[in-house]
Amino acid sequence: MLRGRVIGNVWASRRLDEIPSGAFLEVQIEGGATLIAFDVLGSGIGESVLVSTGSVAASWFPGAAPPIDALIIGSIDETAGAQQ
Amino acid sequence: MLRGRVIGNVWASRRLDEIPSGAFLEVQIEGGATLIAFDVLGSGIGESVLVSTGSVAASWFPGAAPPIDALIIGSIDETAGAQQ
Amino acid sequence: MLRGRVIGNVWASRRLDEIPSGAFLEVQIEGGATLIAFDVLGSGIGESVLVSTGSVAASWFPGAAPPIDALIIGSIDETAGAQQ
Amino acid sequence: MLRGRVIGNVWASRRLDEIPSGAFLEVQIEGGATLIAFDVLGSGIGESVLVSTGSVAASWFPGAAPPIDALIIGSIDETAGAQQ
Amino acid sequence: MLRGRVIGNVWASRRLDEIPSGAFLEVQIEGGATLIAFDVLGSGIGESVLVSTGSVAASWFPGAAPPIDALIIGSIDETAGAQQ
Repeated sequence: MLRGRVIGNVWASRRLDEIPSGAFLEVQIEGGATLIAFDVLGSGIGESVLVSTGSVAASWFPGAAPPIDALIIGSIDETAGAQQ
Repeated sequence: MLRGRVIGNVWASRRLDEIPSGAFLEVQIEGGATLIAFDVLGSGIGESVLVSTGSVAASWFPGAAPPIDALIIGSIDETAGAQQ
Repeated sequence: MLRGRVIGNVWASRRLDEIPSGAFLEVQIEGGATLIAFDVLGSGIGESVLVSTGSVAASWFPGAAPPIDALIIGSIDETAGAQQ
Repeated sequence: MLRGRVIGNVWASRRLDEIPSGAFLEVQIEGGATLIAFDVLGSGIGESVLVSTGSVAASWFPGAAPPIDALIIGSIDETAGAQQ
Repeated sequence: MLRGRVIGNVWASRRLDEIPSGAFLEVQIEGGATLIAFDVLGSGIGESVLVSTGSVAASWFPGAAPPIDALIIGSIDETAGAQQ
């Protein structure tokens, strides 16, 4: 998973019909790159999140897998370790 | 997903028979890299789009999954957030 | 697989219900990037580990594949070779 | 997909039995990286090609998917766009 | 596929039970990055090899796919091309 911070919302009204309900959030990954992740947890701007990418994101959805390749799977509370 | 801008069309007349109908569009991803994404939404040059990559792109197609690893899933209207 | 060193724990109490039991560990990959890997081996901070990424991580879990895209598959004992 | 140019052939006589008939071609991707893609189209050195990567490459083959993660899916004729 | 050179062995006695028989070899990919690939061909240090990554590596194994995301699929004999 990647750890990142939500930095914005993205709207796409013209889109494939198979996109499920939820939000497209722009997430800045540690290190600088950004990606757009699908969110069903109601994550807000500034929140620190965990993102899963690839087919495991699509497989989470019930029924036929939608063309979603990045999913916010959790909101990070805190972190502890040797290198902070 | 990746956010990018359509910057060109690519034609490939000699190709595998399993490629479905649609366009190959060159998309410049934020940060500078480019990739070729398959488009079924009629996206045009200059348009800002969302691209899904990997097997989820192929799985979107009905029937046997074609060897397509990048698909435009939506056209971006606007973006709002903390870092624009 | 990627080789890395565990450098921290990540807690995410608000998360998708499908996340299985186990720990989210921050792993610093050789070369400098970090990722968050799921751990079921009880790996500790400072330990050198092997991480598998992508859908093979999710497929390891019994039953429906959870949205986990990185899994610690082993703890590295030692390494021998031409370039150390 | 990635756009690249065929720059060489690679021979591997000692290999897994499951590798199908076809050529391993070295392809220089736009931006500088190189990868080895499997080719069934008879692509030649100097040719500009489209490469699909990941499991969609393996899934193209009939029967059991071989351990092939990059496949040339077409030969590029020409390109038109805003940024050439 | 990626082309690389075997530069070492990695031992991991404490590991998931689902890891099959074979060796974990450290491979230096062209360009400088290293990864750990699973080997069933008896490849040795210094050998030039082809590595497939992602779920196609796991799918090669008979039975339930193990959490292996990189597999050596062949040993490279020689290379010919325009850019050597």
